[in-house]
Amino acid sequence: MSTKTRGYDYLPGISIDCVIFGFHDNQLKILLLNFKNTDWLAVPGGFIKESENLEEAAQRILEERTGLTNIYLEQFYVFGDRDRRDNEMLKSLMKAVDGVELSPDHYLMTRFLSIGYYALIDFTKANPTPDYTSDSCQWYDIDTIPTLIYDHSAMVKKALETLRFFLDEKLIGFNLLPEVFTMNDLQNMYETILDKKLLRTNFQRKMLSLGILERLDKKMTGAANKAPYLYRFVGKESNV
Amino acid sequence: MSTKTRGYDYLPGISIDCVIFGFHDNQLKILLLNFKNTDWLAVPGGFIKESENLEEAAQRILEERTGLTNIYLEQFYVFGDRDRRDNEMLKSLMKAVDGVELSPDHYLMTRFLSIGYYALIDFTKANPTPDYTSDSCQWYDIDTIPTLIYDHSAMVKKALETLRFFLDEKLIGFNLLPEVFTMNDLQNMYETILDKKLLRTNFQRKMLSLGILERLDKKMTGAANKAPYLYRFVGKESNV
Repeated sequence: MSTKTRGYDYLPGISIDCVIFGFHDNQLKILLLNFKNTDWLAVPGGFIKESENLEEAAQRILEERTGLTNIYLEQFYVFGDRDRRDNEMLKSLMKAVDGVELSPDHYLMTRFLSIGYYALIDFTKANPTPDYTSDSCQWYDIDTIPTLIYDHSAMVKKALETLRFFLDEKLIGFNLLPEVFTMNDLQNMYETILDKKLLRTNFQRKMLSLGILERLDKKMTGAANKAPYLYRFVGKESNV
Repeated sequence: MSTKTRGYDYLPGISIDCVIFGFHDNQLKILLLNFKNTDWLAVPGGFIKESENLEEAAQRILEERTGLTNIYLEQFYVFGDRDRRDNEMLKSLMKAVDGVELSPDHYLMTRFLSIGYYALIDFTKANPTPDYTSDSCQWYDIDTIPTLIYDHSAMVKKALETLRFFLDEKLIGFNLLPEVFTMNDLQNMYETILDKKLLRTNFQRKMLSLGILERLDKKMTGAANKAPYLYRFVGKESNV
């Protein structure tokens, strides 16, 4: 039942698509591929090898696109509408990318479900890398991304909703920051993702009360008495 | 790429498994199938027809097992470990159930991912119905369920964690209650699912402050001045 392609046995009819979030210059960003010889954009994706657990496949796909291992990533939804992928668009795409004419019985032409993962990575450490179908893999600001192919715009929307929902509940936002950061950096990240201003004193009190931050030295910027403290995320005791 | 079986075209390599929660007599319960001629138990499941959206398939499977339509259900996880299903157990199972000897190239013998859904239903309205592989479909108290086949015990565990996590955040618990209920009924349900006692006054104040309950007449039990009010869930304004 598996599908031999490019030398691997992949599971049939299932793909993985990854909404990869980064945070930089007070902007929440995602990584998008631009398909060769087209202006079509998509979130990075791939297939599951027979030899891989599902989670291993997702980590591999993430590593191939970012150069990073041990990425924070979570399943967020399986996209399984019958008509979620336009096969005529797929044919045009593969012709533009590879010069191939997909026959109706090509394995790619069957119905595919796609398992959506979102990943949170440290922007400063990622090395975005196109795949064989694309000539660029670049960061796009979340609030100015163009329309994406198939149902990928819906994927991004759902991933963003999930990120917002879990930001407080699971304290996952720290995965978007470098190892050390100021309270201001942290608040900026929260405000950007939640798309609203937060009261500085309340935010600071709440974050400090959670017992998840270790205070380090001050950040040296010249004016010593105005230098903010640096913090590091040290995790919390339990998580559901 | 699809799999012809029992007259339908099903998507290959993907199943749906459903953890169906009900609440009765202050017990959280789930529906389990008992496979014919064995003592093996499993959560109900099924496959996705070529003609169905993923969500439609899940609703159909739920309806087949409970007789209910428009059930509250949510995807909670895709189970995709390479060795999640023991094929020798599957062979024994199908032999016991159907008398058939599965050949190694039978479509059921390939690797399957399973998309986990949890459903919350009104216990009093469900009509549990076995499928063709099982001779019973019954409610089991969540804290005394025996070991299940394959990775189904892990499925139940994960579904229960998800239910607990979302109980407050998404106010989904009301799907487990009849249309009208007392504040006591509501608190019992919360306490049972969360497995802890809640302070009555705090709980009541919080629930009333959410603006999601409509107060109806008192529940007539004889002693009029002690009769509790009945409530109905009327939803809330927004949800993530």
